Amino acid sequence: MLAERITLVPQGRVPLAEQIYRQIRDLARHGRLPSGMALPSSRALAGQLGVSRNTVSAAYDLLRAEDLVITRPGAVAVLNIPATFALTDRRVQTVGRPVSLAPAGHALSAPLPATVEGARLRPGRPDPRLFPRDAWARALRRAGRTLSGDALLYGDSHGLAALRRVLARTLAETRGLHVDPEHLLILPTVRAGLGLLARCLCADGDSVWLEEPGYPGAMQAFGTLRRVALPVDGNGADVSAMPQGAPRLIYVTPSHQYPTGTRMSLSRRLALVARARECGALVVEDDYDSEFLWSGRPVPALGALAEAGEVATLGTVAKSLLPGLRLAWLAAPPHLAPALIRAQTSLGLMANVHAQAALADFMDGGQYRRHLERISRIYRNRGEALRGALLAHCGNHVAIPPLIGGLHMAVRFAPGVDDVAVSTALGQAGFGVPPLSQFYQGRGSPGLVVAFAQADEATTREFATRLAQLLA
Amino acid sequence: MLAERITLVPQGRVPLAEQIYRQIRDLARHGRLPSGMALPSSRALAGQLGVSRNTVSAAYDLLRAEDLVITRPGAVAVLNIPATFALTDRRVQTVGRPVSLAPAGHALSAPLPATVEGARLRPGRPDPRLFPRDAWARALRRAGRTLSGDALLYGDSHGLAALRRVLARTLAETRGLHVDPEHLLILPTVRAGLGLLARCLCADGDSVWLEEPGYPGAMQAFGTLRRVALPVDGNGADVSAMPQGAPRLIYVTPSHQYPTGTRMSLSRRLALVARARECGALVVEDDYDSEFLWSGRPVPALGALAEAGEVATLGTVAKSLLPGLRLAWLAAPPHLAPALIRAQTSLGLMANVHAQAALADFMDGGQYRRHLERISRIYRNRGEALRGALLAHCGNHVAIPPLIGGLHMAVRFAPGVDDVAVSTALGQAGFGVPPLSQFYQGRGSPGLVVAFAQADEATTREFATRLAQLLA
Repeated sequence: MLAERITLVPQGRVPLAEQIYRQIRDLARHGRLPSGMALPSSRALAGQLGVSRNTVSAAYDLLRAEDLVITRPGAVAVLNIPATFALTDRRVQTVGRPVSLAPAGHALSAPLPATVEGARLRPGRPDPRLFPRDAWARALRRAGRTLSGDALLYGDSHGLAALRRVLARTLAETRGLHVDPEHLLILPTVRAGLGLLARCLCADGDSVWLEEPGYPGAMQAFGTLRRVALPVDGNGADVSAMPQGAPRLIYVTPSHQYPTGTRMSLSRRLALVARARECGALVVEDDYDSEFLWSGRPVPALGALAEAGEVATLGTVAKSLLPGLRLAWLAAPPHLAPALIRAQTSLGLMANVHAQAALADFMDGGQYRRHLERISRIYRNRGEALRGALLAHCGNHVAIPPLIGGLHMAVRFAPGVDDVAVSTALGQAGFGVPPLSQFYQGRGSPGLVVAFAQADEATTREFATRLAQLLA
Repeated sequence: MLAERITLVPQGRVPLAEQIYRQIRDLARHGRLPSGMALPSSRALAGQLGVSRNTVSAAYDLLRAEDLVITRPGAVAVLNIPATFALTDRRVQTVGRPVSLAPAGHALSAPLPATVEGARLRPGRPDPRLFPRDAWARALRRAGRTLSGDALLYGDSHGLAALRRVLARTLAETRGLHVDPEHLLILPTVRAGLGLLARCLCADGDSVWLEEPGYPGAMQAFGTLRRVALPVDGNGADVSAMPQGAPRLIYVTPSHQYPTGTRMSLSRRLALVARARECGALVVEDDYDSEFLWSGRPVPALGALAEAGEVATLGTVAKSLLPGLRLAWLAAPPHLAPALIRAQTSLGLMANVHAQAALADFMDGGQYRRHLERISRIYRNRGEALRGALLAHCGNHVAIPPLIGGLHMAVRFAPGVDDVAVSTALGQAGFGVPPLSQFYQGRGSPGLVVAFAQADEATTREFATRLAQLLA
């Protein structure tokens, strides 16, 4: 009897009619009810299940809407189950080909070098305890209450106008970058910007020059592009070391090279822009943490040197506020901006409107600047303390250039030291500091990339002691 | 004299030292100061500018950090301007090639069919006045105050665990879709999901089947893929009309076809899944507005019929709450989910964490369901009123099938009516209703796509009257 095979949950979230419909459907699907079977009348089934007749009628209506039941005038309702509806596990496993990844899918999903165990001193993370939580929560609430109309709908897909305006002013003041707010794209992440530029400017087989050592996330965001290593030394990336080749993109971190922490010299920056102009390449400047450059003033963004649209500059609040806000921006070359904005829309690379409004608030009222000043001091102290401790404990086993800013430092070892082994051993002690050699596409120098954003005194002491033991 | 060429703003946002540095730098850059020129001593320049000597020293330090000044012990500071640093407008315009778009960039930024002037009855927009503004603002504030630690940093890049859990439960209850929360990707937009799938599963030259008429946004998100029209009739998209071809993707809107508003029949859905399995294609189900299906119960998501990973289902709160929240999701086939999640990270397709937490709150507490019930009633009334008015005023000049849900309807005209002209005339009256023929890749039937989300009584009456005049 059908009613015996149906179990109802009277107070469940799912309406009773829907429960009856689904269970009959699932029985049919699993081959437990034959096609052509006459269904009991709604009155009969209702009586057996202890529900109202309307409930069963509604369930039958759902089955009818699904074409699973046929009713002819004056006749009983009959199950009508297409052969292809029924499932057997065997059939599912044997028929057809599974959907598979294309080459770009493999490239984009290639696992990064094994991440080191341990959360302490892991690069790329600000200290969430320094986030101005209550002020941000209030700004969000205000945004939630006041934003209205078109801003909440599709608005400008390249970002809230108020944010683009204040951001343009801030970039001019702090980065020497003069950009029309109409040429600023607000994006969820820097990587979304990298992906957008790669997709719009490159075809398969094109090449991109990437700093070596460099940012693994960028290597991955560029997917199937041919990656060519651009050497980095104490003056930053050096295009003069590349006698030939016409890349489409040149990805650099000039104000604070990732991960070595060097600053690109003016002559290198000029050479880079000139070379890009010669070969029609776009320089992609990742200005990921220039908010925290404390040695002298930060040099202007590379984009400030480019007058003919050779540079696109990317920035983010992932380090200055929080990664979870998913707020970044791209200052696009004027001649590419309209196309990039349309492509941004096509690819749906948009950021949450309330977070945008909150950031505009923060920047407009000076709160953002004061926050940066405060955390810069704190990070600087933590960085100097960690560097001092490492130099004191590890002596000449390590080389660490003076810090100019940021949230991390590259600690270099003597050639021949197995940095993977050192990193693994530190991982077991809870320190997630990757080996420097992992930041090279080819063979790299040994060392560690160590973040100090969350380095309190105890952590600093323990780390320095452990590293000294490992290197001794 | 150098001091005469420098103008300081004493109470400006930019520190005085920075102002002096920048102005000297800009003079040099524009060829107004010769390389090799001796700078005045810091004491002298300070006296002339009326600032402290430290201020000028700091400015000189900045120039030195930029390699623009050379100081030898015991000698005066000398300007050192690389030839490539100086700018002339002529040089910028004539040297080098501008960066240009690749074919994918052209495809992704191709303008959509001319949008119609006028904001009223424009498709794709919910009524922002129905958004539960205060409740959302409170939820945001709560999220801002309570979220901490790793969720604020990088957390799970495929989304906040709490949201994925409640969303998985909701999809099971409302869409019959049983998906492991680990296989759910939280994305900023549905288009980001389309872009992710296209990028990961397709290579250039591969083809995608797209409903005809269909969603122009999807056509664009698929970029350079070969687009093949999949015919739609009163039972939805029909793969049996495609005797050959092996697409990589099949994009469909089965629960409420966009823009015709039809629902795909069960036999069509079964045929679609079977065909996809045969040729190794992925069905991309855009479940964009199934929250508002009021005729009978919504049929289960197509993904509920797929047992071997043939379907990826996309959803969003763009219609049920607001597009500006930039919150969408992708229920990925289990065998593809890990790779898609890694690619999502590479491409930076992440959503704001506070909005995610607020949505999890809304869904968990039943607020979301109650909101949907409320706005469904309102939208249904508006839709039925608009349809009734159009049928009453325009008689047999229009055909509009009964509405099953959503926020828009397709109004069909008799063959031969110039729908572009009608749409343009309506645009001049402030109605942004696109011609139906624009939703076809080839030649299409005439009509209009009319949204009723914001259709109040007066708008409905005015629109029906105008349309009747135009069609008479």
